[in-house]
Amino acid sequence: MSIHDSLLGRTFVDNATRALLGDARRLDAMLAFEAALARAQSRCGLVPTSALAPIAAACDARHYDVAALGDAARLAGNLAIPLIKALTAEVKAHDADAARWVHWGATSQDVIDTGLVLQLRDVFDHVDAALARMIETLAALTRTHRRSVMAGRTWLQQAVPTTFGLKTAGWLDALLRHRARLHELRPRVLVLQFGGAAGTLASLGEHADAVSRALAAELQLGAAALPWHTQRDRIVEVGAWFGLLAGTLGKIARDLSLMMQTEVAEVFEPAGAGRGGSSAMPHKRNPVGCAVALAAAIRTPHLVATLYSAMAQEHERGLGNWPAEWETLPELIGLTGGSLAAMQDVLAGLDVDTARMRRNLDATHGLLFAERASMKLAEALGKSTAHHLVEQASKRVLAEQRPLRAVLGDDPQVAALLDDAALAALFDPLTTLGDNDAFIDRVLADVPASGHS
Amino acid sequence: MSIHDSLLGRTFVDNATRALLGDARRLDAMLAFEAALARAQSRCGLVPTSALAPIAAACDARHYDVAALGDAARLAGNLAIPLIKALTAEVKAHDADAARWVHWGATSQDVIDTGLVLQLRDVFDHVDAALARMIETLAALTRTHRRSVMAGRTWLQQAVPTTFGLKTAGWLDALLRHRARLHELRPRVLVLQFGGAAGTLASLGEHADAVSRALAAELQLGAAALPWHTQRDRIVEVGAWFGLLAGTLGKIARDLSLMMQTEVAEVFEPAGAGRGGSSAMPHKRNPVGCAVALAAAIRTPHLVATLYSAMAQEHERGLGNWPAEWETLPELIGLTGGSLAAMQDVLAGLDVDTARMRRNLDATHGLLFAERASMKLAEALGKSTAHHLVEQASKRVLAEQRPLRAVLGDDPQVAALLDDAALAALFDPLTTLGDNDAFIDRVLADVPASGHS
Amino acid sequence: MSIHDSLLGRTFVDNATRALLGDARRLDAMLAFEAALARAQSRCGLVPTSALAPIAAACDARHYDVAALGDAARLAGNLAIPLIKALTAEVKAHDADAARWVHWGATSQDVIDTGLVLQLRDVFDHVDAALARMIETLAALTRTHRRSVMAGRTWLQQAVPTTFGLKTAGWLDALLRHRARLHELRPRVLVLQFGGAAGTLASLGEHADAVSRALAAELQLGAAALPWHTQRDRIVEVGAWFGLLAGTLGKIARDLSLMMQTEVAEVFEPAGAGRGGSSAMPHKRNPVGCAVALAAAIRTPHLVATLYSAMAQEHERGLGNWPAEWETLPELIGLTGGSLAAMQDVLAGLDVDTARMRRNLDATHGLLFAERASMKLAEALGKSTAHHLVEQASKRVLAEQRPLRAVLGDDPQVAALLDDAALAALFDPLTTLGDNDAFIDRVLADVPASGHS
Amino acid sequence: MSIHDSLLGRTFVDNATRALLGDARRLDAMLAFEAALARAQSRCGLVPTSALAPIAAACDARHYDVAALGDAARLAGNLAIPLIKALTAEVKAHDADAARWVHWGATSQDVIDTGLVLQLRDVFDHVDAALARMIETLAALTRTHRRSVMAGRTWLQQAVPTTFGLKTAGWLDALLRHRARLHELRPRVLVLQFGGAAGTLASLGEHADAVSRALAAELQLGAAALPWHTQRDRIVEVGAWFGLLAGTLGKIARDLSLMMQTEVAEVFEPAGAGRGGSSAMPHKRNPVGCAVALAAAIRTPHLVATLYSAMAQEHERGLGNWPAEWETLPELIGLTGGSLAAMQDVLAGLDVDTARMRRNLDATHGLLFAERASMKLAEALGKSTAHHLVEQASKRVLAEQRPLRAVLGDDPQVAALLDDAALAALFDPLTTLGDNDAFIDRVLADVPASGHS
Repeated sequence: MSIHDSLLGRTFVDNATRALLGDARRLDAMLAFEAALARAQSRCGLVPTSALAPIAAACDARHYDVAALGDAARLAGNLAIPLIKALTAEVKAHDADAARWVHWGATSQDVIDTGLVLQLRDVFDHVDAALARMIETLAALTRTHRRSVMAGRTWLQQAVPTTFGLKTAGWLDALLRHRARLHELRPRVLVLQFGGAAGTLASLGEHADAVSRALAAELQLGAAALPWHTQRDRIVEVGAWFGLLAGTLGKIARDLSLMMQTEVAEVFEPAGAGRGGSSAMPHKRNPVGCAVALAAAIRTPHLVATLYSAMAQEHERGLGNWPAEWETLPELIGLTGGSLAAMQDVLAGLDVDTARMRRNLDATHGLLFAERASMKLAEALGKSTAHHLVEQASKRVLAEQRPLRAVLGDDPQVAALLDDAALAALFDPLTTLGDNDAFIDRVLADVPASGHS
Repeated sequence: MSIHDSLLGRTFVDNATRALLGDARRLDAMLAFEAALARAQSRCGLVPTSALAPIAAACDARHYDVAALGDAARLAGNLAIPLIKALTAEVKAHDADAARWVHWGATSQDVIDTGLVLQLRDVFDHVDAALARMIETLAALTRTHRRSVMAGRTWLQQAVPTTFGLKTAGWLDALLRHRARLHELRPRVLVLQFGGAAGTLASLGEHADAVSRALAAELQLGAAALPWHTQRDRIVEVGAWFGLLAGTLGKIARDLSLMMQTEVAEVFEPAGAGRGGSSAMPHKRNPVGCAVALAAAIRTPHLVATLYSAMAQEHERGLGNWPAEWETLPELIGLTGGSLAAMQDVLAGLDVDTARMRRNLDATHGLLFAERASMKLAEALGKSTAHHLVEQASKRVLAEQRPLRAVLGDDPQVAALLDDAALAALFDPLTTLGDNDAFIDRVLADVPASGHS
Repeated sequence: MSIHDSLLGRTFVDNATRALLGDARRLDAMLAFEAALARAQSRCGLVPTSALAPIAAACDARHYDVAALGDAARLAGNLAIPLIKALTAEVKAHDADAARWVHWGATSQDVIDTGLVLQLRDVFDHVDAALARMIETLAALTRTHRRSVMAGRTWLQQAVPTTFGLKTAGWLDALLRHRARLHELRPRVLVLQFGGAAGTLASLGEHADAVSRALAAELQLGAAALPWHTQRDRIVEVGAWFGLLAGTLGKIARDLSLMMQTEVAEVFEPAGAGRGGSSAMPHKRNPVGCAVALAAAIRTPHLVATLYSAMAQEHERGLGNWPAEWETLPELIGLTGGSLAAMQDVLAGLDVDTARMRRNLDATHGLLFAERASMKLAEALGKSTAHHLVEQASKRVLAEQRPLRAVLGDDPQVAALLDDAALAALFDPLTTLGDNDAFIDRVLADVPASGHS
Repeated sequence: MSIHDSLLGRTFVDNATRALLGDARRLDAMLAFEAALARAQSRCGLVPTSALAPIAAACDARHYDVAALGDAARLAGNLAIPLIKALTAEVKAHDADAARWVHWGATSQDVIDTGLVLQLRDVFDHVDAALARMIETLAALTRTHRRSVMAGRTWLQQAVPTTFGLKTAGWLDALLRHRARLHELRPRVLVLQFGGAAGTLASLGEHADAVSRALAAELQLGAAALPWHTQRDRIVEVGAWFGLLAGTLGKIARDLSLMMQTEVAEVFEPAGAGRGGSSAMPHKRNPVGCAVALAAAIRTPHLVATLYSAMAQEHERGLGNWPAEWETLPELIGLTGGSLAAMQDVLAGLDVDTARMRRNLDATHGLLFAERASMKLAEALGKSTAHHLVEQASKRVLAEQRPLRAVLGDDPQVAALLDDAALAALFDPLTTLGDNDAFIDRVLADVPASGHS
C-alpha cells in the first residue's frame, strides 16, 4: 500500500511507478539497511557472525503489519521506532542473543533516510529507462515530421509557419537536458546516511569510520563527507528534478491538448477501449493522457515547494519539517512517473493529421505570411513603409475575407516589385522554414544511438 | 482505503478523520447522488417507481472493486465513468429495465462534485465538534493560567512578562474566528452540483428545473443559482479555511515546542506508552504531537495553493485542473484533521510548569523590566534621558551579571527618584501585566457556554 | 515608490491600485496611527494637548527619506524603528517636549499592522467598487447574450450547445460570491492592533483599556478582543480572498483567450493604439489583457501560500515569518487589482462574434447533438441500445465527414421512430438549451439594482 | 529602479544584489542584445557597417524613460515592443537608414530572454564570489570550533554532545554542494535565445545559422541546439538553485536564532549601531540578520514554485505564463542574494560563547550521556537490560534533580561493572565525539585552498 494505491491514486500513477513507492518497498529498503548494518559491523568485528542469519531472516517486510506500524509511528514520532521494535522482537523470537545487535549505534533517521536513498536508486533506474524510451519516441516523431508544416502559434494565435518536427524537437531537447541533470545529481544523492543519535556516531567510538565505510560498501552507496540529517539539499534537489520533468511533460500535454481541440484537430491521443469516452457524449475522444500530465503539472510545483519549505530543519534533527518530506517526495515522484507513463502512451500512439495541419495554415487567408511579405518588401521599401503597407493590406484581408496574396497582388507598389511567381513563392510554407532543418539536426545529433546512454 | 490509509498516511491522520475521507465514503456519497437522482426523477414523473428499489440496492459501495475502478478511471478520465458503468451493470443484473434510468441526464462531474459536497457536510460536522472541544480545552487552560506569569518573547528573546493564560487566549481567539468563518461558508458550499453534459441540463428538457429542485431536496443540499462545474471558488474556499486552521494549529505547536526545549522546560506534552520515545536516548520526551501539527503546517499551504492553481478551468469542464483537486482537498482536510486531533491530545493533557515559567523570568537579571523602569523614570527625566540611563544600566547588567534592580539602585539619579519599595515594585511581574485581565475576559466572553454554539 | 512602480511592476498593476499600495501611502498610514495615538492618549489625560499639533505636523510622509528608511529598516529589523526615530527627531526639531510623547506605550508591530489595516480599508473600498463595475458589465453581457448559442466545451472539445450568456452568468455568479465574502471578512479584519512590547500594554498600566478604545475610535476601526501580533489569520484571510478573485479572473481570461484562438475566433479583446500588437507580425490581435490576468492567476496562488507558510509565528513576535508578509500581501493585492483592471477593460470592450459562435457549432457535423439524439432514441430503444446506435453513427460521421443528421436519417431503425421534422428539431440548438434561461434569470436576480449594494 | 528598490525591498535585499537586478541593468542587457545583433548581421553581410555606430550609440539605457516603457509594456504585452519602438526612434533621430536594421529578424522574446541570460551571467559571478567568501568564513569557524563541545539537539531537545565545529561543517558541506551545482548548470543556462517570430528564424532565410553563431560569439554565450522560447527548464533550474541556497541559509539562520534565545545564549549576531535594537526594550540584541534569511527562506519556495507553475507554456510563445516569470526570478534572486549578504555579516562577526555551550550540557544532569551509559552497560548486560536500567535511572534523575552519574553510581549492578574513574570518563563530552574529527577533516578537505575554486 502507498498513497498511490488508493482509488484516486491509481487514477494518476501507473502500476510500475506505484510498485516502486509502495509501503512494502519502503519497509524492505529500511530492513536492507538494518541487515547491511549488522553485516558491516560483523566485518569490523563488532557483531558476532552468528547474529547475521537471524537478523537477515527477520529483514523481510512480509513479517510486519503495515497498519499497526503506521499507527505506532504516529505515537512514536517516526516509523523507525516501531519497526526496529518489531524487528528486534522478530529476531529475538528466533535468537535472543542476535537481537542485542539490531540497529546498533544507528538512529531512526539513519535507517529512514538510507532506506529512501535505496528506493531512489531504483526509481532513478526506472525513470532513466522511461526517459530513454520517450527520447526514442520523440526522435522518431521528429524524423517523421521534420517537414510537416503547421502553424507556429504565439499568444494562442497563429503566427508564422513551423513544423511539427520542430515542435517535437523542442520537447526532445528539454528531455535530453533532464537526463543530463539526472546523471549529474545521481552520485551526489545516492550516498549513505549514518550518524547515530546526533550525527557524531558517538556510540561506535573508534569504530565509527570503519563501520561507516563498510556499510556504504555493503549497500553500494557513496560515502557522504558527514551525516546530512538536517542538510536536506540532496532530497530537495531530487524533488526539484522531478518537478522539472513534470513541467516539461505538462508543456507537451498542453500543446497536444490544444492541438486536439475540436476546431484545431491536428493530433489525437490513441483510441482504445474505455479510453477517453464521455458518459454523456458518445462521439468524444478526450485527451485523457494529457489530463493526467496536466494534473501532475499543476500539483507537482507545490510538492516541490513543500520540500523547499521544509529545509530549515532545526539543529541535529528537524521538528515537523523532516516528517513533512516523508509523503511529499513519493507523491511527487508518483505523479511525475504517472505523467511520464501517460505521455509515453500518448506519444507512442499519437495520431497526427498532417493534412489538417497544412489546411489550418489557410485559416487566416495568408496572414501568417505577412511578416515574410513585410520583410521582403522592406528590402526595397524600408522596414517602416513595408510594415505599414502590409498592415493596411492585412486589415483588408480581415474586412473582406480575401487572401492576403490577392490583396497584395492588387497593390501597384507590390506589383511593381514582385511578379506572380515571386508573390506565390512568398506564400509557400515549405520555403519559409528558416533554420528548421539545422535546429532539428542538432537536437537529433544529441540523441544517443540506442536511446540508452 | 484512502491516501491516508498508507503506512505514512496513518502517521499524520487520526482514525476518525481518515474514515470520513476513505474510498468507501467517497463511493457511498457518489452512489447516494445516483439513488437520490432516481428518486427525484421519479417524483417528477420521469422514472418509474419500480426502478427505485433496484437502483437503491445497487447504490452500496460494497458491491464495487475499488482497485478496478481506480485503474479504469485512469483510462476513462474520471471515476464516475467506470462507477456508473459498474452500477448500471449491477442494476441490470437484477432488473434490466431499471438499468435504463441510472444516471439519467447527469454528467460525471455532477456525481463527483455532489458526492464531494456530501462528504464535506460530514467533515464540517466533525471538525466543528472537534473545534468546539478544543475551544473548551483552551478556555479551561486560559481560566487556570490567567495569572501564570511567564516571559513574553519577541524575536525569540525574552521581552517583558506576560501570562500563559494570555498566550492560550490568543490561540483561543483565533479558533473562535475559524469557527465563525466555517459557519459563514457552510451554506455557500453545501449546494447541489447538477448541470448535465455541459451545464445546461439539456437532456432533461422542460423537466430540468423541477428535477434539480427535487434532487437538492432529496439530498438536503442548498440550490446553486446555476451549475458551477468550472467555477471552483467554493472548493478553494473550503481548502483555504482548512489551511487557516492548520496554520493556527501550527502556531500553537511552534510555541509549545519552543517552550518544551530542554533549556526552557515550561510545558510538556502528555507522557504515554510508545509516545515520544527515542530509539537511542531513553530519557527524552519528544514533542511528537507538535511535530504532527508542524508537519501539517508546512504541507498545507502548498495544498491550498494547489487548489488556487487549478482555478482557471477551461470552458465547461476543466482539463487536468479539475482532477488536480481530487486528491488535494482530501489530503489537506486529512492533514488538518490529523493536526487538530494531535493538538487536542497535547492540549488536553498538557503538563504546565508554572514554577519554571516564573523562574525563567530571572534569566536576564531583571532586564525584562527595563522598559518598565525606563517608562517610570521617563515621567521625571523625559523619555530620551531615561532610555539612555536604562540602556547604560543594562550594559552593566550584562557585563557584571548583576541584577538590574541592584545596578539601578546604585545610580544616584534613580535613588533620588525611587525608594527601595518603589524600586522593588517595578520588578514584580504581577504588577506589570497591563490589560492582561481585560484581554482574557473579552475572549472568554466570546466562548459559547457549552462550547457547542 | 512601491514594488509595483518598477519597470515590470507597471506591466502588471494599474495606476489606481499602485497608488494605494505605494510607499507614501504606507508611511502616511503608519503616521496616521502615531498622530491618532497621541490624540487618544491626550483624550485619556496622558499626553498634554500642546503636544498634539507638533506631532500632527510631523506625521506627513513627505518629511521622510524613503530610501534611507529602507536601508535603516534592514539593520533595525523593521520599518517602524527608523521611522519613529525620524518622527521623534522631526517633532523635536519643532517642540522638544512634544517629542517625549511620540509612540508612547506602543510597539513597532502596533504601528505597522494598524497602518496596514488602514491601507486595507482603502483597498477594500477600491476593489469593492471595481467589482461592482465588473458585475454590471457582466450582467449587461449576460442579458445581451442569453440566447447567443455557442458550443459548450468539455476537455477542450465541443460537447453540447450552450449560450455565451450562460458562460458570462457563471463568471458573474462567482463574482457575486466574492463580493459577499468581502463583506463578511471586512469587519473581522478592519480592527486595531495595539498591544505594546509583548501584547499586554503593560507600559500603559491602568490606562491601557481606555487608550485602546479611544485609539480605535480615532481611527474608526473595530476593536480586537486582544492583540493579534502572532495570530495572523486575519491577514491570511485577506490574502486568500484576493487569491480567490485572481483565480476567477484567470478563469475568465482562460476562456476568453481560448475563444480568441485563430481557429475559434469567437471573441476579441478591444483593439486600440499600442494594444496587443506584435513586433514581428503586423496582423495579430493578441489577448494582452488576458495575459495580464493569466500571469496574475499563476503568481497569486504562491503569494497566498506564502502568507499561510508564515503563520506559525513564534511566541509574541514572529522571527522572519512576520517580515515574510510585508511585501507579499501588497504584491498579491497589486497583481489582483491589476488583473481586475485589465479584465474590466477587456470585458467592457469585448467584441463578440455571435455568427462565428453559431458557425463553430457545425464543426463536428452535428455530433454535438449526439447525446440529445441518444436520449431521444433511448425513450423507445432503451439507453444502452440507443447509445450504441448513436456511437456507430458517430463513427460514420467522422469517417465519411457527413452530417450526423443525414447518417441517422439513413438508419431504418431511426427513420421508423422519427420523421424528417422531428429529426431536424433534434439538431436545432435553440431548442436544446435546457435550463439555460432559468439559470441566467436566477443569477441576474442576485445582481444589485445599481450594482452598488 | 527594481522591485527591490522600494521601501520594503531595501529591507530584504543588499545594495550589491539590488544593483544587478535593477531596471537599468535590464534595459542595458536588452540593448546589448540589439547592438550585438546588428554587429553579427553586419559580419554576415546583412547590415551595412555604417548602421553600427548609430545603433550602438542608441543602445544605452539612459536614453529611455523607464516609467513610460512600463506603462506601454502593459498595453503592448511585453517590454520589448515599446523598447524597440523607442530604440528605433532614437536611432532614426540620428540616422534614418540605420533605423531600418534595428532588431532585424528577431522577436520580442529573443531580446528579453537573452537580456536575462546576460544579467544572469553577472549574477552568477557575484553569487559565486559571495559563496566563496562564506565558505572561507565557515571553514575558519569550523577550524576554530572543531572541539567546542555543545549539546546536539534533536526534536528541539538536547540529545548527545556534538561540537559547534561539526555544526558549521554541516552548513559548509551544503554550500560546497551548492557551488558544485552552480558550476554544472552555468554552461547549460548561459546560452543564446534567438528564434524569430515563431522559433524558426524564418525571416533570416539561409543566413539564419550564420547570424545565430555570430550573435552567440558577440555575446560570449553558448549556442542552444534550438530556440527555447517555451522550454523553460533552464530558467526554472536557475530558480531552483537559488531556492536551494536560500533554504540552506534559512537552516543556518534557524540554528543560530535558536542558539541566540535568551535561555540558550550560545551565540550572538554581531552588535552595531542601529542593529537589532528594539523600540521598547533597550537591552535586546535581536537576530536581525537571521530574520532576513528566515523571511527569505519562507518566501523563496513559493517563488520557485511559481516558476514551475509557469512551465506549461503554449505552443511557440506562452500566454501569461511567460510573463509570470518576469518579476518572479529577479525577486527570488534578490531575496536569496539579500539573505546571503545578511548571513555573511552574521557569520563573519559571530560572537560564540563556548563556555555557555559547555555549561548548557549540564542542564539535564547528565542525561545526555544516558545513551552512552546504556551502550557501555549493554556490553555486559545486553542491550535490553541496559536500556531498562538507564531508563529507570533517568526517571530518578528527573524526579530527584540529581546527576545521572550519581544515580548510576548508587546502583550496585553498575558499581560492580564500573569504578569511579570509568564512570567519570563516561560523562566527559570530549571523549564521546565519535567520528567528529574525521567528519570535519573530510569537509575541510573539500574547501578550495583560497576559497576561489
